[in-house]
Amino acid sequence: MIEAQEIMNGLGAQAKAAAQLMRSASTRKKDASLKCAAGLFRIHMQDILAANALDMQAARDHAIDAALLDRLELNHDRVEAMAQGLEEIAVLADPVGAISNMCYRPSGIQVGHMRVPLGVIGIIYESRPNVTADAAGLCLKSGNAAILRGGSEAIHSNRIIAALLAQALSENGLPEHAVQLIQQTDRALVGAMLQSSHCVDVIIPRGGKSLTQRIADESKVPVIKHLDGICHVYIDKAADAEMALNIALNAKTHRYGVCNAMETLLIHEAAKSMLPSIVLALLEKGVEVRGCCQTISACQGLDVKLAEDADWATEYLAAVLSIRVVDTLDAAMAHIAMYGSGHTESIVTGDYAAGQRFLREVDSSSVMWNASTRFADGFEYGLGAEIGISTDRLHVRGPVGLEGLTTQKWIVLGQGEIRS
Amino acid sequence: MIEAQEIMNGLGAQAKAAAQLMRSASTRKKDASLKCAAGLFRIHMQDILAANALDMQAARDHAIDAALLDRLELNHDRVEAMAQGLEEIAVLADPVGAISNMCYRPSGIQVGHMRVPLGVIGIIYESRPNVTADAAGLCLKSGNAAILRGGSEAIHSNRIIAALLAQALSENGLPEHAVQLIQQTDRALVGAMLQSSHCVDVIIPRGGKSLTQRIADESKVPVIKHLDGICHVYIDKAADAEMALNIALNAKTHRYGVCNAMETLLIHEAAKSMLPSIVLALLEKGVEVRGCCQTISACQGLDVKLAEDADWATEYLAAVLSIRVVDTLDAAMAHIAMYGSGHTESIVTGDYAAGQRFLREVDSSSVMWNASTRFADGFEYGLGAEIGISTDRLHVRGPVGLEGLTTQKWIVLGQGEIRS
Repeated sequence: MIEAQEIMNGLGAQAKAAAQLMRSASTRKKDASLKCAAGLFRIHMQDILAANALDMQAARDHAIDAALLDRLELNHDRVEAMAQGLEEIAVLADPVGAISNMCYRPSGIQVGHMRVPLGVIGIIYESRPNVTADAAGLCLKSGNAAILRGGSEAIHSNRIIAALLAQALSENGLPEHAVQLIQQTDRALVGAMLQSSHCVDVIIPRGGKSLTQRIADESKVPVIKHLDGICHVYIDKAADAEMALNIALNAKTHRYGVCNAMETLLIHEAAKSMLPSIVLALLEKGVEVRGCCQTISACQGLDVKLAEDADWATEYLAAVLSIRVVDTLDAAMAHIAMYGSGHTESIVTGDYAAGQRFLREVDSSSVMWNASTRFADGFEYGLGAEIGISTDRLHVRGPVGLEGLTTQKWIVLGQGEIRS
Repeated sequence: MIEAQEIMNGLGAQAKAAAQLMRSASTRKKDASLKCAAGLFRIHMQDILAANALDMQAARDHAIDAALLDRLELNHDRVEAMAQGLEEIAVLADPVGAISNMCYRPSGIQVGHMRVPLGVIGIIYESRPNVTADAAGLCLKSGNAAILRGGSEAIHSNRIIAALLAQALSENGLPEHAVQLIQQTDRALVGAMLQSSHCVDVIIPRGGKSLTQRIADESKVPVIKHLDGICHVYIDKAADAEMALNIALNAKTHRYGVCNAMETLLIHEAAKSMLPSIVLALLEKGVEVRGCCQTISACQGLDVKLAEDADWATEYLAAVLSIRVVDTLDAAMAHIAMYGSGHTESIVTGDYAAGQRFLREVDSSSVMWNASTRFADGFEYGLGAEIGISTDRLHVRGPVGLEGLTTQKWIVLGQGEIRS
């Protein structure tokens, strides 16, 4: 453990030194590095695939399951997509150095904010090697230094991807240590990173809930994260029936394994007549429906199972939906406050007062009115790219893009003013 | 310890319920509560002073030192100032519910941010009873619930102040538990609060460095804080001599015991000729000057002691100043990066390139150009009020006003859009 901390301290010191240079690196150099790395991925396509083949072989030897093998695998198209991802980051606006809200104060000084990088960002992720490129690219563009810790299954793939990123930095006059991969697969290194508040400014876990929960519990470094995505759609009594059907179907069935999929449908008692057609459409898509007693009685003849209490608190990430009939808007919001995970909730209503109350009083990172929860996404919101989603309350909430990887400092411009 | 956690859990549950109501409380009710509390302070002036007299007597019986007695003491003018402080918070703009950056996306949805309260804020402070009113007032106005833990010396004063605040909330239709004082003086309650991430969203310590450091080390709840204020003024070679003298004098001698006072003066080697008049002026104000060898040789005949390495890392909070001559702007910035505390630094220069580099590359919560470090203050920056200063990188940096006690959520307005 002491050795792990020593390794981490070495990486951290190099990262801090790199972050100091990256803080004022020009947009031109950062963009050139991203494009250069994309080019290197293409030039070294065969080397990347060969490294990945080593990881795949080892994974097969360890009889690792098919889903993980799929996440681990790189092929020509996936490497090309990684390269294009970096090129897309290169054309995004640079958030660093932007000055806002400058105003004159009565003392004569001008005061405002300048946007600046966070510093050193630790990324802890699982077996997808493309995260190495994505996460490093976003950290680089936002002027931060990244320390990457990927799943041990992907170590050969990650090593070559990280080495090419470092080469691209170095070829463009930027510090190669702005992107560092932890080379050791020893788990103690993760523990060491979580203790390294002296040299890591923030940790972003990318992976399943158990990984994220463990990191959040143990970390002495601030963590940007979300745990669950128990998203709700609430169909108000003043909802348009066709809109309600479309949104409910899209929110549940567009993709099942994603954090912004609807997991519970709430519906006002006066809109119960919409339920049979919604449930029928869901069943036809192969969704298992679990409803409260009122849902079941409203859907006679349809295959609706009785929901248990645990259903309201479950993120299925699968073709399963729970449905509950509520008496009032207040009851819907109380259900969300009790069982929701603060990720994304949507109201379907044509009623102005109900929509306004829902927007104001529901305390989630994204709150929607007449739209599918599936829109809770960095690209859909116009961030250009997304490093993750935060359901925490401090610093950044909802989809996190380049701006979420920065902070602000106050700047003051004077002409010799002193305080009296 | 279990008992302390139980007490804390009870307070936390009440605070969460109150926060849920405060989140959408009207500006009118919040402002009315603040003004009502100010009125109650005046009506109950004699009761407040009587409670404070109990605290003062107990403090004298325990032979507590004069500085603490002064901080603890309330008199008519101090209670009146507390009341006026609440009235000043009442007239500030309400940050909650403000919507910004709404824009249409190609999908048809409108996306933007709504400013919302943080939730439950824990305030841990020392013996000043006026903090009870100030901190609670800022939390109330920003739609949060506050759990207050003041120094045990001030318990009688704090109890009546908190009770009057709760009464004002209640009389104006707001939850009385939006302001709760921990009634027990047992230290275990502080420990329990620091473990209460399930019911406290953020902790703000107000007090000396040792209190703050202990809280930051032990807390499982995010902490908004600063530890040191080792602020620098750098006099560049292109500085105007009179401006440099004025700023250096103001930054050091305007007040000594404040976190935004200058503790180290850096001066470019080519501006050394300004040193004798600056040092003479400081000595005449009674400041003890500790300089590097070059400073001493530039100030022959003046009483300059030799600075030791420890001086560069010391926040004197007293009439003491360290001075160092540097060869270049880079050397000045390197000194600040090594010894600074990330609080406030100022450059004095007429040179555009030097000023721009300093603004961009110095990584402190406030970076100034031709202004005294004493301006780093919530009132001077136009925040209206200040609950503290943050030198952390996440969420909020520099002076923290009402906006720093809020966060944002995404809001999405649609017309039935679904994701394709």
